[in-house]
Amino acid sequence: MKDAYRLSLQLHEAHHGKLEVVSKVPVNNADDLSLAYTPGVAQPCREIAKNPDDVYKYTWKSNSVAVVTDGTAVLGLGDIGPEAALPVMEGKCVLFKRFANIDAVPICLDTKDPKEIIEIVKKIAPTFGGINLEDISAPRCVEIERTLKKECSIPVFHDDQHGTAICLTAALINALKVVGKKAEDITVVVSGTGAAGSSIIHMIHDLGVKEIYGFNINGIVIKEDADSYDFLTKELAEITNSTQKRMTMAEAMKEADVFIGVSAPGLVTKEMVASMKEKPIVFPMANPEPEITYADAIEGGAYVVGTGRSDFPNQINNVLAFPGLFRGALDARAPQITEAMKIAAARGLASLISDEELSKDYIIPKAFDPRVAKVVAQAVIDEVHK
Amino acid sequence: MKDAYRLSLQLHEAHHGKLEVVSKVPVNNADDLSLAYTPGVAQPCREIAKNPDDVYKYTWKSNSVAVVTDGTAVLGLGDIGPEAALPVMEGKCVLFKRFANIDAVPICLDTKDPKEIIEIVKKIAPTFGGINLEDISAPRCVEIERTLKKECSIPVFHDDQHGTAICLTAALINALKVVGKKAEDITVVVSGTGAAGSSIIHMIHDLGVKEIYGFNINGIVIKEDADSYDFLTKELAEITNSTQKRMTMAEAMKEADVFIGVSAPGLVTKEMVASMKEKPIVFPMANPEPEITYADAIEGGAYVVGTGRSDFPNQINNVLAFPGLFRGALDARAPQITEAMKIAAARGLASLISDEELSKDYIIPKAFDPRVAKVVAQAVIDEVHK
Repeated sequence: MKDAYRLSLQLHEAHHGKLEVVSKVPVNNADDLSLAYTPGVAQPCREIAKNPDDVYKYTWKSNSVAVVTDGTAVLGLGDIGPEAALPVMEGKCVLFKRFANIDAVPICLDTKDPKEIIEIVKKIAPTFGGINLEDISAPRCVEIERTLKKECSIPVFHDDQHGTAICLTAALINALKVVGKKAEDITVVVSGTGAAGSSIIHMIHDLGVKEIYGFNINGIVIKEDADSYDFLTKELAEITNSTQKRMTMAEAMKEADVFIGVSAPGLVTKEMVASMKEKPIVFPMANPEPEITYADAIEGGAYVVGTGRSDFPNQINNVLAFPGLFRGALDARAPQITEAMKIAAARGLASLISDEELSKDYIIPKAFDPRVAKVVAQAVIDEVHK
Repeated sequence: MKDAYRLSLQLHEAHHGKLEVVSKVPVNNADDLSLAYTPGVAQPCREIAKNPDDVYKYTWKSNSVAVVTDGTAVLGLGDIGPEAALPVMEGKCVLFKRFANIDAVPICLDTKDPKEIIEIVKKIAPTFGGINLEDISAPRCVEIERTLKKECSIPVFHDDQHGTAICLTAALINALKVVGKKAEDITVVVSGTGAAGSSIIHMIHDLGVKEIYGFNINGIVIKEDADSYDFLTKELAEITNSTQKRMTMAEAMKEADVFIGVSAPGLVTKEMVASMKEKPIVFPMANPEPEITYADAIEGGAYVVGTGRSDFPNQINNVLAFPGLFRGALDARAPQITEAMKIAAARGLASLISDEELSKDYIIPKAFDPRVAKVVAQAVIDEVHK
């Protein structure tokens, strides 16, 4: 890790960041200038003024995404502010280009007020084809995303919520195939009910999972305590813990077929894994240190293990989802990203691994599999056109 | 012109706009990913959180500019809105890259409220090294720029005001050499007192010109009428028309050594040029149709003529100023762009033409002269470090 830190620092300093904005058209003489700029440029302006939809035809709007943050929940570093968040946002933009040929621009905001963030995003929206919200703390991020989805005419997506959920759901679909179980029949423990956890719970609920136990720092999510919950956790109380049991995570694990962790290191023991139903599926996703180490999960008897790390099998990496998802949404000119589009993306991602290839160590495609973004994009486009 | 319109439309449609955001770092494998993104990227984030100034070291902030508009005064097309303004903003970004290697991003705002525009620019400022305001109608643009200059810690510049003024001042400096007159001794008529006109009047006043007559749609600017003026014109009344004469532009031209037009086609006749002091300097800059045609100005006896057009000698083109000005401001880490920096830029630009090269048909460098941005940038840096 220290090596990566040192090398990353060198890389960032050598290039002064990672992004460059270049021209797709030549500007070598006065003629070029008269087409890319005045007087010629007046004509696409006139056409768009006449027919607003032409902005997709004559500008980068058809291919551009703003990566917006307020710097309040950056990686595991917390509220480090908009400037310190910029390296991550530039990195995200690099990934957009690398994996889906999307022109993405970081926008780091010097405000933490959700209302103000919403207003700013709405007001800059004419410039872009989509908005990717990033590293905004929960539950504010949910309020911001939901309002923007309603009030913006372009797709808005909060990757920390739904990116992880899509990849996780894809992994779950394939892991269930490996262990021969059905979504309808399983019980899932989810540790962490913030941005990612709540989206995962909603998504696997939509997938058909009937029993989910959600845990956070206050213990199990349960309707009885809903008065003390924020709006996000209140919603989870409605779709989890159907029999309203008050129990510890260790107790819940005994009923569980699947463990999903988006919380903190060390919350799960070998013994807890050993107590799970047969062929346990364990996704300890806390990064870089998971809820249980890969070695301990295997020793505890986990049958399928997926983590956020690239040094173990089954890396569940957001980069598998957001580039293709936005590629599809932009190409389909979807006005927003719906629950159905996200599930379609997860199914598309899962479908890349054939039944013959599928194994407990290969439930999710690799980040650099060149098919990924295309398949995800096509699944999203098909869903939009359905 | 029609040809340029048709070809420009084709060009914009072929590429879906003109801008692309690319990575300066490789992302070919998991190792690359771990440096450009997680986990390595956490380190530059930590460094910036510790030492905010490091944002210039590890991110694109040292080289990025936001080109911000509300679409209210786009070219000669007027208030066509943020989407229809996007081709111009993309074009501006192309020029930033082409002439000064600056990474510029269009930001088209869906609001016309100056207070809101100011707030948004302040809130997105952490992302960028500078702000270029563009095509915002007067006098709102002046209020917006002045407030931002006070309240932002990065350079803010409204090109429509000061870009033209810098180039025009450079042209005037050299034209005065050609005709053998001094700034202190001349009388100047300025037609148009909007964004560009008011900045020109301030700048040539700073250059030492003692008698300036400003004209707009209501006639000559005069203190007596100041109660009915907006704040911008009120300021001009203080530094123009020293003897408070109420006269027509035709009458004022008889006293003038120099005519500067940033107004509308056809306002100046051959006869008016013929009535000017000896060796008239005429800069009819209305674009694409000037206040007087080049041919008529010459026929009327103009000694030096400069226009905004590339098909006549002495094209006074903003592209001569803003790329180098921002290059210098970014490289010097100037917190704002001062009057002194603008004058320095004008003098730097004018200095590119040696006394031997100088002639009535060569008072201002060509847009594609590769020395321009460097000399302007260096003049600005020298001024900052003075």
